[in-house]
Amino acid sequence: MNIGVLGTGGVGQTIAAKLADGGHVVMIGTRDVAATLARTQPDGAGDPPFSAWLQAHPTIRLGTFAEAGAHGDVLFHATAGYAALDSLKAIREAHLDGKILIDITNPLDFSKGMPPSLFISNTDSLAEQMQRAFPGLKVVKSLNTMTAALMVNPQALAGGDHHVFVSGNDAGAKAAVSGYLKDWFGWQHIIDLGDITTARGTEMLLPVWVRLWGALQTPMFNFKIVQ
Amino acid sequence: MNIGVLGTGGVGQTIAAKLADGGHVVMIGTRDVAATLARTQPDGAGDPPFSAWLQAHPTIRLGTFAEAGAHGDVLFHATAGYAALDSLKAIREAHLDGKILIDITNPLDFSKGMPPSLFISNTDSLAEQMQRAFPGLKVVKSLNTMTAALMVNPQALAGGDHHVFVSGNDAGAKAAVSGYLKDWFGWQHIIDLGDITTARGTEMLLPVWVRLWGALQTPMFNFKIVQ
Repeated sequence: MNIGVLGTGGVGQTIAAKLADGGHVVMIGTRDVAATLARTQPDGAGDPPFSAWLQAHPTIRLGTFAEAGAHGDVLFHATAGYAALDSLKAIREAHLDGKILIDITNPLDFSKGMPPSLFISNTDSLAEQMQRAFPGLKVVKSLNTMTAALMVNPQALAGGDHHVFVSGNDAGAKAAVSGYLKDWFGWQHIIDLGDITTARGTEMLLPVWVRLWGALQTPMFNFKIVQ
Repeated sequence: MNIGVLGTGGVGQTIAAKLADGGHVVMIGTRDVAATLARTQPDGAGDPPFSAWLQAHPTIRLGTFAEAGAHGDVLFHATAGYAALDSLKAIREAHLDGKILIDITNPLDFSKGMPPSLFISNTDSLAEQMQRAFPGLKVVKSLNTMTAALMVNPQALAGGDHHVFVSGNDAGAKAAVSGYLKDWFGWQHIIDLGDITTARGTEMLLPVWVRLWGALQTPMFNFKIVQ
């Protein structure tokens, strides 16, 4: 499938690499292609610059948000939260209408230091803002509640015995995304929380997630809903 | 031990009954004793009026918040969130200084209908408000992330293989509370998230908790942190 991945950070890279390994035709979108390729220093997380990563993944193409949005039959949204709405608005609405967007973004606000707070929460969410801005887009919030390595490889932890959530207004889109999560990444345990307003709940998991990271001294953990 | 339980709702009743069964001397605190006893109708959740519950638990006494606060060597806070700070302020500060308060409250705002939002979140929490208002009190946030029946009986679900969190500024108080959780209620898996500001994270679990209740059609579930 042709897939567009918005965002060049660790989440975008991890999703894109896994999809490309699976035989999908992947384009990563960024705001400014030349600027993204010109970076030569390690990023904020200490990882190599994007250009080095791209050289190591020759089947993956880099384009603008508009180009990646046009390319993908399905889109993954993996930019920083503060850039999430603008990066979508850079895509022509005709290239979004009717498509599924798997929204992995989180409204993390690092402007007041660590740990981050949320710049949207409680009575709204990033996912709802996207859905309101693009009514023809089928926004499905998912995968935003774990570290990137687990998103594409849940079996790396406890044989996959933990959960991923989906939130969205379109039942068919949620069913399709649940299939992608299973077939492309190996997820066995998926909980449909309800409509897109339930994304408030998963975005509001981030504050405890960040504190668990601190307490456990590793990001390799996930939530399991025990019944 | 002499234990004060603030709040006459389902959580307060469940905690008080379990502690009394364990041989503790329990007083439940309420704003207005006469008014609490005068209620003859089932409560909002359809449970019997408090007076009927109290008759069935003859070793448990009912008093004002001030009396229950004075009585308890350890206090459990289980009022509705909107009443949480005022109910503490009804207790003489001398009866709070140096004591441990296990704060189970959540800042749920039902004023805009269901599902509830939070009236404090993100950059503050109910637990922090209590700690700021009473610096001599040792506030430990815990047990606020599950239904009442599981608080006192984690074995009812998956043999107890799921988590409870503690947040607080006083390491000794958190160690003591962890012991109470284990010895009084049977908790095997306790995660210390850090100082009292980490209570923001657990209070912000409530929005997804409420949606999980809806999706799973039962409140008998809990979070397990899989590592």
